[in-house]
Amino acid sequence: MPKKILRINMTDLKATYEDVPAKWSKWAGRALTSAIVCDEVDPMCHPLGPNNKLVIAPGWVSGSPAAPSSGRTSFGGKSPLTGGIKESNAGGLSSQKIAKLRLAAIIIEGTPAKDKWYTLVISKDGVKFENAADLVGKGMYEVDEILGKKHPKQAIIGIGPAGEMKLSNAGISVNDQENKPGRYAGRGGLGAVMAARGVKAMVVNDDGGTGVEIANEELFKEGRKKLTESIQEHGLTKKGGALNSYGTAVLVNLLNEAGGLPTRNFSAGQFEGAAKISGEAMAEYCEKRGGEGMMGHGCHPGCIIKCSNIIPDENGKAIASCVEYETAWSLGANCGIDNLDYIALMTRECNDIGLDTIEAGNTIAVAMEGGLLKFGDEKGALKTFDEIRKGTPLGRILGQGVEATAKAFGVFRVPVVKHQSMPAYEPRAVKGIGVTYATTPMGADHTAGYTIAPEIAGVSGKLDPLSDEGKAELSLTFQAATAFIDSTGYCLFIAFPILDIAKGWAGMAESVAGVTGLKITGDDVIPLGKEILKMERLFNERAGFTAQDDRPPEFMREELLPPHNVKWSISDEQLDSVFAWVHDGK
Amino acid sequence: MPKKILRINMTDLKATYEDVPAKWSKWAGRALTSAIVCDEVDPMCHPLGPNNKLVIAPGWVSGSPAAPSSGRTSFGGKSPLTGGIKESNAGGLSSQKIAKLRLAAIIIEGTPAKDKWYTLVISKDGVKFENAADLVGKGMYEVDEILGKKHPKQAIIGIGPAGEMKLSNAGISVNDQENKPGRYAGRGGLGAVMAARGVKAMVVNDDGGTGVEIANEELFKEGRKKLTESIQEHGLTKKGGALNSYGTAVLVNLLNEAGGLPTRNFSAGQFEGAAKISGEAMAEYCEKRGGEGMMGHGCHPGCIIKCSNIIPDENGKAIASCVEYETAWSLGANCGIDNLDYIALMTRECNDIGLDTIEAGNTIAVAMEGGLLKFGDEKGALKTFDEIRKGTPLGRILGQGVEATAKAFGVFRVPVVKHQSMPAYEPRAVKGIGVTYATTPMGADHTAGYTIAPEIAGVSGKLDPLSDEGKAELSLTFQAATAFIDSTGYCLFIAFPILDIAKGWAGMAESVAGVTGLKITGDDVIPLGKEILKMERLFNERAGFTAQDDRPPEFMREELLPPHNVKWSISDEQLDSVFAWVHDGK
Repeated sequence: MPKKILRINMTDLKATYEDVPAKWSKWAGRALTSAIVCDEVDPMCHPLGPNNKLVIAPGWVSGSPAAPSSGRTSFGGKSPLTGGIKESNAGGLSSQKIAKLRLAAIIIEGTPAKDKWYTLVISKDGVKFENAADLVGKGMYEVDEILGKKHPKQAIIGIGPAGEMKLSNAGISVNDQENKPGRYAGRGGLGAVMAARGVKAMVVNDDGGTGVEIANEELFKEGRKKLTESIQEHGLTKKGGALNSYGTAVLVNLLNEAGGLPTRNFSAGQFEGAAKISGEAMAEYCEKRGGEGMMGHGCHPGCIIKCSNIIPDENGKAIASCVEYETAWSLGANCGIDNLDYIALMTRECNDIGLDTIEAGNTIAVAMEGGLLKFGDEKGALKTFDEIRKGTPLGRILGQGVEATAKAFGVFRVPVVKHQSMPAYEPRAVKGIGVTYATTPMGADHTAGYTIAPEIAGVSGKLDPLSDEGKAELSLTFQAATAFIDSTGYCLFIAFPILDIAKGWAGMAESVAGVTGLKITGDDVIPLGKEILKMERLFNERAGFTAQDDRPPEFMREELLPPHNVKWSISDEQLDSVFAWVHDGK
Repeated sequence: MPKKILRINMTDLKATYEDVPAKWSKWAGRALTSAIVCDEVDPMCHPLGPNNKLVIAPGWVSGSPAAPSSGRTSFGGKSPLTGGIKESNAGGLSSQKIAKLRLAAIIIEGTPAKDKWYTLVISKDGVKFENAADLVGKGMYEVDEILGKKHPKQAIIGIGPAGEMKLSNAGISVNDQENKPGRYAGRGGLGAVMAARGVKAMVVNDDGGTGVEIANEELFKEGRKKLTESIQEHGLTKKGGALNSYGTAVLVNLLNEAGGLPTRNFSAGQFEGAAKISGEAMAEYCEKRGGEGMMGHGCHPGCIIKCSNIIPDENGKAIASCVEYETAWSLGANCGIDNLDYIALMTRECNDIGLDTIEAGNTIAVAMEGGLLKFGDEKGALKTFDEIRKGTPLGRILGQGVEATAKAFGVFRVPVVKHQSMPAYEPRAVKGIGVTYATTPMGADHTAGYTIAPEIAGVSGKLDPLSDEGKAELSLTFQAATAFIDSTGYCLFIAFPILDIAKGWAGMAESVAGVTGLKITGDDVIPLGKEILKMERLFNERAGFTAQDDRPPEFMREELLPPHNVKWSISDEQLDSVFAWVHDGK
């Protein structure tokens, strides 16, 4: 039995199972959410209006037996934050369970009666539309607990109060193996899109699911083996390697040394308190404080990288999972805060209220620049989350993210591209990632084309981060590879080993080919990635995006960034070259 | 002595007088502010950043002896609200005085030290940079009073608290003949641009000014005579005519009858309380209550139309001047409010705090839809202005206008084009004005191409407002004529007589030719207007605007508007035809 599209109409509360049309049949994950959004969502619709849709898709290999680190679920729609197409993917329990129900994608459309909220319970028997009145207003810790009791060990997807208020920084939570929120499709406000459809939560119960059909078992196993080995061999991803030992926050010290750790709203590239918020510091916390604290936590079943963590308080009780590099930076260095406990507490707030931590930290930094708080005021920063939770006017400003907050407080140093705030790498000090921020269809996003690999981490060679040379081509290659990986269901971190170890790259492609029966080899990764990017770029063009939307903010062209004292120097022509092929037909 | 450009640099607090370069020499008013903005402001700059400029220019005939109703001052810059080019013009005392100092334009650029505010005193002797610390935080009534005592009978230009906070709905006030604020360059947030330059207020003292040079006295007098006669002959503009007797709010009943009076955030085209907020009701107030109340008030010296009013309270004391049609609608019908006293009180708040009344009323309506208040809650609506004045978080949301407020409260019915809210004519019921809203470079703006003249008022013929036919061409003609009139210094209301009375049209052109020595006849009005529009469109294109920015909001294509039960029906192709000539070269 082939995979189906599950279409859920919230206007008349009906679910239908549809054959996957030929035009979508080769896609999964990000490629599929983007294809569906391109075909079914008017690029000119209001993101919170009746014509936007929320599309959810597991990757090609999601749910396949022992495909390593393959638990990513893609969420797509028109973004309330960027106004463009959005795909944001998360770990947690949902990807494998959706795949095991043999669903290619779930499309949620239509609008229920005013102020009605639903929990969708999806199983092999169909969809139940349960009244979610009991969950409304609740944070995701409580939602996961309540639904987890009714549906133990199942996937729970949900939105917190930020989503219910339709704030532009509302993310979508997926529960982890401990049934806690913290795996977020965070970026771009898709939680508000889910809210606009009247959906507070979804349960995906794969009991009795037919499982994933494997077209070519042998090829799949061969590919899986190569990929698994390469992950286990690479210094960054192997057991006891950098990511497993210190989490993604192993990057804090690296970026700080490189002068590329954005500090106090992107006014410097080094933070004097960096060491205190680093992965090494987190490992020390977990070791000293013990209890529920741990490094090397896996964000979804079957992960063999295990870069997540659970940060404990002084008594060893878990504060939050996971304090990523991005989170430690956004709520830390970028706000002038060097207290890891407060960063973990704020992370917990984000996970509970339903906020993207990157946007949330950037927002506080901009509010600090606008005079709401002083840089470094960790207590004041933590309190701002109460405002968002309660939906006070201040909370409604901050919950919308950086650009809204900058406008409210008259700040013109606004680190955004396409209205989405920049992650933890200063584009003036690491030029390639700046090209990615500027040109990706997703708005400023490091995961869209992670040139940090060669520019900082020395993966696939070592490039000078301060040099402009070749960065347009570099970013495009990474963006294309990423679009492919985001469609596989694999975690993007497989990029480190597969870029350095040739069998890993081939293995990834073979495992996809094995599951799907598509003729995909390593040579197809970049071309297929470009097909995906092209769809997304064209959606954005139809939504009114132009070359002028592919620009870093003005202040980065004007202000020197210490310690290197550099400005943004990549020309507009270079930026425009990244996607010139979309219309050149090359 | 030819006119000069006065360039005021706020970084080093220096003023220089420059010759008008050849490229700008034929322009004045809106044409000149737009030309300067196009040449000197980076379309990609942040509107509140160091590279935006505020440009101020009187019109061609401003300050010429007895040119009728010629007291408009153009203010230009990159708009914090729309992100595009902006010209907003106001009556009051400034236009004639700047012209009499023989200044073609004033360009304010650069940024003073942080938190420094200045009052610029401009006279024949140059510019004094006075510390404005004593004025900071004060509303415009107090600012006008304080500066009016030091500089009696001079022009005072200023911003209220909204401007100081750099909110996107901050306008620029010009004092009227009673030295009250209320003549506003309101639209597009130029008050925030003035604030970004550190200027709280400006005094223009024309004592001893050299006056306007008239190139051809005879031609000027001939043109002035024709224009004056046509104004005095036309039913709308003559003494005792519709505008003079009832003010612009004479339109309330007309639009209500036509089903085109947007009601309760553009959800209906008729308001049951229309009569109570009409111009006729205002005239009754003035007559019954007397005291300082009056209709037929002139907003600047030399106006012969006198459509302004001063609305009195129960004791005959002036509440505010002027309650325009737009104001009575935005703070009235559109909020479901039918109490003229409250509308006048809110108008006073806008004038004092420094807000555009169109955007302010629309904002309250959207907040009402979002649940902050109930439609019709006049007391609650009035209180919101306290929030803006104090700069509370709620005030900082509302002070940014409609779009920011819609985002904060999760509203998707957002009546904006290019991020600026729509004025008092429902585009679904009056199609031509919808074309103007959609396509003008200024963002939704009725004054940019007032097709209401033929569609509602029967000026220059009578067209069916509900018909789509010919509305693209109609809008373009009106937009071009308006761009010309906005450059003359004449009030746009001369359009009524000159469209109906041929000698008026010719007279306007001849008076411009007479003052300037340019060879301009009535035949040149539309071509010159198109030149101005082209500059503005190209600026917006360089700022990233596309055809997708020339669209009414989605809900108007989806929802039927009572009582006619019509949707927006003009095709995108028709909209795109309006400015096709910019690139066709026609």
